[in-house]
Amino acid sequence: MRVSSRGTVDPFIVMDVMSRAAEWEAQGRRIIHMEVGQPSTPAPAAAREALKAALDQESLGYALSLGIAPLRERIARLYGEWYDVDLNPERVVVTTGSSGAFLLSFAALFDAGDKVGIGAPGYPSYLQLLKASNLDPVVIETAAEARYQPRPADLAGRGLSGLMLASPGNPSGTMLSRPALSELMAEARAQGISVISDEIYHGLHYEERAVSALEVSDECYVINSFSKYFSMTGWRVGWMVVPEDHVRTVERLAQHMFICAPTASQVAALAALDAREELEANRAVYAANRALLLRELPQAGFTKIAPPDGGFYIYADVGDMTGDSLAFAREILDKAGVAVTPGLDFDKARGARTLRFSYAGSTADMEEGMARLKSFMQARAVA
Amino acid sequence: MRVSSRGTVDPFIVMDVMSRAAEWEAQGRRIIHMEVGQPSTPAPAAAREALKAALDQESLGYALSLGIAPLRERIARLYGEWYDVDLNPERVVVTTGSSGAFLLSFAALFDAGDKVGIGAPGYPSYLQLLKASNLDPVVIETAAEARYQPRPADLAGRGLSGLMLASPGNPSGTMLSRPALSELMAEARAQGISVISDEIYHGLHYEERAVSALEVSDECYVINSFSKYFSMTGWRVGWMVVPEDHVRTVERLAQHMFICAPTASQVAALAALDAREELEANRAVYAANRALLLRELPQAGFTKIAPPDGGFYIYADVGDMTGDSLAFAREILDKAGVAVTPGLDFDKARGARTLRFSYAGSTADMEEGMARLKSFMQARAVA
Repeated sequence: MRVSSRGTVDPFIVMDVMSRAAEWEAQGRRIIHMEVGQPSTPAPAAAREALKAALDQESLGYALSLGIAPLRERIARLYGEWYDVDLNPERVVVTTGSSGAFLLSFAALFDAGDKVGIGAPGYPSYLQLLKASNLDPVVIETAAEARYQPRPADLAGRGLSGLMLASPGNPSGTMLSRPALSELMAEARAQGISVISDEIYHGLHYEERAVSALEVSDECYVINSFSKYFSMTGWRVGWMVVPEDHVRTVERLAQHMFICAPTASQVAALAALDAREELEANRAVYAANRALLLRELPQAGFTKIAPPDGGFYIYADVGDMTGDSLAFAREILDKAGVAVTPGLDFDKARGARTLRFSYAGSTADMEEGMARLKSFMQARAVA
Repeated sequence: MRVSSRGTVDPFIVMDVMSRAAEWEAQGRRIIHMEVGQPSTPAPAAAREALKAALDQESLGYALSLGIAPLRERIARLYGEWYDVDLNPERVVVTTGSSGAFLLSFAALFDAGDKVGIGAPGYPSYLQLLKASNLDPVVIETAAEARYQPRPADLAGRGLSGLMLASPGNPSGTMLSRPALSELMAEARAQGISVISDEIYHGLHYEERAVSALEVSDECYVINSFSKYFSMTGWRVGWMVVPEDHVRTVERLAQHMFICAPTASQVAALAALDAREELEANRAVYAANRALLLRELPQAGFTKIAPPDGGFYIYADVGDMTGDSLAFAREILDKAGVAVTPGLDFDKARGARTLRFSYAGSTADMEEGMARLKSFMQARAVA
């Protein structure tokens, strides 16, 4: 049996760092993890309790493909709370994580060979998911001066059918301002480009809140998830908001592609939406971690960093220290015992000169990590 | 924003029957559901208890993309218990239901435009999933005399890259015998056709057990799920067994397409694998229901039925009663208060002359359903 060509997918470079970290840990060494892309906290207590109760009382069989009604309604209300947007619950599609939402949106919007623009640096799976969906990813190199986000002029002459936006971005943590988002969406619309806005890090902001594409236009797909702010990565539950006239198409595709998002996860997610106190306490930890890194990374010598508007990442240009970010990440791991992500996963062209630091861990771990990084960089400067 | 052409998917015909049934129920009428494709039982008690314990003790964050190690190992052992096959756990890929396994297998094995053979009558989502994956489904009309399963001669001259097998089949409940399966797989191999064997109804047999494609050859993809025998539909957890040299490809695709199957569902599924007593009690109910239908359906006049080897369906040729199975299903619902599935969902060409009866419900419901069907058919004969 042969493997398909679209099945030939690049591995994550960070896996090299992670397996090396696991080797060190197997030898008894304590490693500080600043490479992870998930909260260290579990699902909110209220979510876990709601599921326990449901396990005794409900059958938790197949749900409707668009999601259980109370969850769709509660998500619609969230748009009122977060953005003052009045959203029709009928437009909310509960998905199997944001991963499921990407697959579903690509199938609903694009045909084989269509070109879809994605920013670099960006989430590595966009590229691979587009390829696996027989689409043609068009990488748009973004600039630090543009907060690592695409600009309207970037859309010209590329023959795009679609455009993925991510604000806050991963790995950059940078956001599109409301005017920048409006201009970009207006230009996309003028060119007949369908916009998919990945808003998975919404809720995790530290100064101004993130702007939703839905505040700008109803003519887009918005994707979000319970994985980050709601601290439910492993539950594989997210959602999508689509234009009213796309709901039926998406429903039919979802029936075949997924049947439904996990019912138990939907029950837990519904309760998570009201676990405000616990979630805001998590966010306060990220805020403290972020302040710590913003103070101490420059002291360690990492001075060229993207504006860390949201999420839990800081993206640093380390081009004056290395031209091989993987080798540099290995060196930091081996000598300092700190795992970080080489930029190569996010930007094939320029990621050899960047690193991503995640501050999703505990504050104590972040303090230890910063102390180790400072000593490592001092020793390196001397050597 | 426009919808893609591959996003234009046929609705399930049975939805018409289901919403009509819901209308009757809203008016207070009791409807017997013989259209459903899922067990009426919840996940086994042991599975629910295991998850409750994990909710207190584990973070349930992202799992490894191939699945949690104890679950992969336990599934491998199941192949020893069920088929006397010694399976390397490294070949087991835990998936987001069998739906996730289909998407993953199609991406790993086929490129855009490849032709994949599927039997009719068959599970409607095969066709739609193949189309959504930019593949070209080739419908193979199977014969009642061949137990509604493809034969080696059916593979000739169709330019197939792949072949989906389903034994027991849905809607037919019919199985491929070991010699029939061996001949079919040998012919596929001779023609360079990759075989995907959907074994989702394994465990639910009433006379001889079903034969796994893995008993015949390691050169195939086998797909199974916790939804049917293990009574965990809404949990969205299944698995796939792939050849050793495909594991790495499938792992990388799964990382991007799904990240992981729901962690909570994996914990529950692991415990379900040892809930033999409860699951066998469920199976005893299906066996009783099946015996009831096999006795009483012919009394009602449904005499032309496929050999119901496994699963929980009986597929009946009603061509001497109607040429419009949807209208007939509506009539049965309106007059008898029994919901059944018109064959059109499973076989566009010939399904106007067939119905599927599900016996996944309680025995009391099946008794009531049969009594109603008999009265309805008697009245119809007189009219």
